[in-house]
Amino acid sequence: MKRNVLIIGAGGVAQVVAHKCAQNNDVLGDIHIASRTLFKCEAILDSVREKSALKLADGVLQAHRIDAMDSAAVARLIRDTGAGIVINVGSPFVNMTVLDACIETGAAYIDTAIHEEPDKICETPPWYANHEWKKRDICAERGVTAILGAGFDPGVVNAFARFAVDEFMDEVKSIDIVDVNAGSHGHYFATNFDPEINFREFTGTVYTWQGGKWQENRMFEVGRDWDLPVVGTRRAYLCGHDEIHSLAARYPDADVRFWMGFGDHYINVFTVLNNLGLLSEHPVTTAEGLEVVPLKVVKAVLPDPASLAPGYTGKTCIGDLVKGVKDGREVEVFVYNVADHEEAYAEIGSQGISFTAGVPAVAAALLIAEGPWDAKEMKNVEDLDPKPFFTVLDRIGLPTRVRDEQGDRAWNE
Amino acid sequence: MKRNVLIIGAGGVAQVVAHKCAQNNDVLGDIHIASRTLFKCEAILDSVREKSALKLADGVLQAHRIDAMDSAAVARLIRDTGAGIVINVGSPFVNMTVLDACIETGAAYIDTAIHEEPDKICETPPWYANHEWKKRDICAERGVTAILGAGFDPGVVNAFARFAVDEFMDEVKSIDIVDVNAGSHGHYFATNFDPEINFREFTGTVYTWQGGKWQENRMFEVGRDWDLPVVGTRRAYLCGHDEIHSLAARYPDADVRFWMGFGDHYINVFTVLNNLGLLSEHPVTTAEGLEVVPLKVVKAVLPDPASLAPGYTGKTCIGDLVKGVKDGREVEVFVYNVADHEEAYAEIGSQGISFTAGVPAVAAALLIAEGPWDAKEMKNVEDLDPKPFFTVLDRIGLPTRVRDEQGDRAWNE
Repeated sequence: MKRNVLIIGAGGVAQVVAHKCAQNNDVLGDIHIASRTLFKCEAILDSVREKSALKLADGVLQAHRIDAMDSAAVARLIRDTGAGIVINVGSPFVNMTVLDACIETGAAYIDTAIHEEPDKICETPPWYANHEWKKRDICAERGVTAILGAGFDPGVVNAFARFAVDEFMDEVKSIDIVDVNAGSHGHYFATNFDPEINFREFTGTVYTWQGGKWQENRMFEVGRDWDLPVVGTRRAYLCGHDEIHSLAARYPDADVRFWMGFGDHYINVFTVLNNLGLLSEHPVTTAEGLEVVPLKVVKAVLPDPASLAPGYTGKTCIGDLVKGVKDGREVEVFVYNVADHEEAYAEIGSQGISFTAGVPAVAAALLIAEGPWDAKEMKNVEDLDPKPFFTVLDRIGLPTRVRDEQGDRAWNE
Repeated sequence: MKRNVLIIGAGGVAQVVAHKCAQNNDVLGDIHIASRTLFKCEAILDSVREKSALKLADGVLQAHRIDAMDSAAVARLIRDTGAGIVINVGSPFVNMTVLDACIETGAAYIDTAIHEEPDKICETPPWYANHEWKKRDICAERGVTAILGAGFDPGVVNAFARFAVDEFMDEVKSIDIVDVNAGSHGHYFATNFDPEINFREFTGTVYTWQGGKWQENRMFEVGRDWDLPVVGTRRAYLCGHDEIHSLAARYPDADVRFWMGFGDHYINVFTVLNNLGLLSEHPVTTAEGLEVVPLKVVKAVLPDPASLAPGYTGKTCIGDLVKGVKDGREVEVFVYNVADHEEAYAEIGSQGISFTAGVPAVAAALLIAEGPWDAKEMKNVEDLDPKPFFTVLDRIGLPTRVRDEQGDRAWNE
């Protein structure tokens, strides 16, 4: 059954989602995109048209202006557009209002990152329990499909973990998710996502699930060198991340950690800005009496993440090193994907980080439209069968591979 | 003859000037202080009273509110207060309006730094020729004493150069001014002066006078280790500075360079902020539409320089290594001062950097009041006899020393 799609947001990830929906509009139907800034939505649709991305060329492409914090307005737009699936790739501040609109209208809901309150940098774990999971019962009651965290990480990496455990072990001991961007944007410094959101990830407490409980560290406190396919040996640091909070609930006996790759230069710039107080979301007052949030000024001087795409070179490698026991023997497997910045730009005008975040959300939408993931309740990605997901991802640009003592191969070889 | 003093400015240097004027009010008479912010003037006068700094306890201490960019208002205040000497330690943006008020009223003028236009980071050399020296003729015509750059550097270091050349050589080959603050304020990062002014010194072209012409470098491009009295071996970097621009005019056949000591940490923080554009004086617009000058936000998050004083430890060493020829033989001499942050705080509640900048301006005021420096025209410090200056400085807290092959000794031993 064709399901019209409403995309919320008009940033770099929304651009990827729009292109991929267009390339699959034989399954998805009409494509609507809505954000606070109409011209950004129009620009994305223009780029879809420029690339002739619509599979069915007479498909509907339409831009809308919306305040996604206004749940009733989102519900009205869902009804007006006849959207059966809402892909929320707006700011993480709007998750709950958009989810409420889906519950209200019965549309399926997909997002790619956990809800955040603007004034709270880091909430207590497990993060999903603070907001999204409070809506589990009502989703089940009303038969509303809601897939949480269906980007790459969280998202595909959750499916990697589920797949590794199901296929290769009787018992899981640890899940280490490693995210390395070995690409180069050629700027002195830039963030791949909105700097405001990007830095918030690293200014709070680092929560990981180890030894059956939440462990707290500071950012950049724990680093380790990882030997990775294609990108080689890279240093990554223990980091708080959404997927730890759902995977720890599913696999409470395993250690669940997230590692993000950073070069010394990134860490140095981050440390200087953070120590000076320039990453603060609390306003300061200048000598002239102007009240201003330092983080917003840092954002204003940094390159727009979307502007990085044309010059971006190199690859990303994101995967899960999963260790466990099979037939009484210790086993380990690395399930991963390698994506290429230049290929992403050539295909849809985006950099690789946006590409890896946006494509899985569209895969999830296709699996809802086609049935396998139309769960009629709230799910995190690891709650769903990973194999149809990998099959769609293989087809639409993010192939899954496996490396273990048997060698390095496609997941289904 | 007693000469009432009007101090312009109410920052860290003004605090030092006020205390030192009070300690010498038998020579200087009434002490007035004026700035945009009346309560800062009052706070300085309160600290003068707390320390019982007035030599003649019944002396006048009075605070005034002034916009020093308004030359006519400054002239009125000079007349109203009967000020015979104006010590301008306000922002470097007000030099010309305050100087004009002195020319208008006949009061003597003293400052400690070169004039700057707010929107010009670095003008063409020689800097004095862009603004102050244009008033030389009118000062001479009207018999107005104006002593330019009478802080430590510029100021005392200009006198060091003149003294070294006059006393120890027939011909001067090079003057290297070295300014090292080996003190510690205990903060992650702070500037010793107003960050806005401090950073401006380092974001422009570095001009030095070498081989009979202006040479251009970038900041931190040229570094050298210096073996200094008391503070030991320190790395200092070629840097643009006011005194090069007058000393090069007096000694055109000598190389004139200025070196400022920086630790790797300072350079790193500066480099990050500068490369990101956060030291820019040009406004940026945040995503929310707020127009803001990044440098002013950096200033707002950094510690107030005046707040550094209580915890500041360690010493400064500032001196001139002067090389030349005497009786056909190559000679070199290092003329210098060492100041102590804790002693400065104990005496007048200031850190050492403010102390070294403010005390020489008061020495100049005393020499005007007592006659030896009442030149009735515009002078840079090296145009005046350094010996009475050193004599006053010895007495009021900044003793001059000499180190050469004969050893290390007081300048007059």
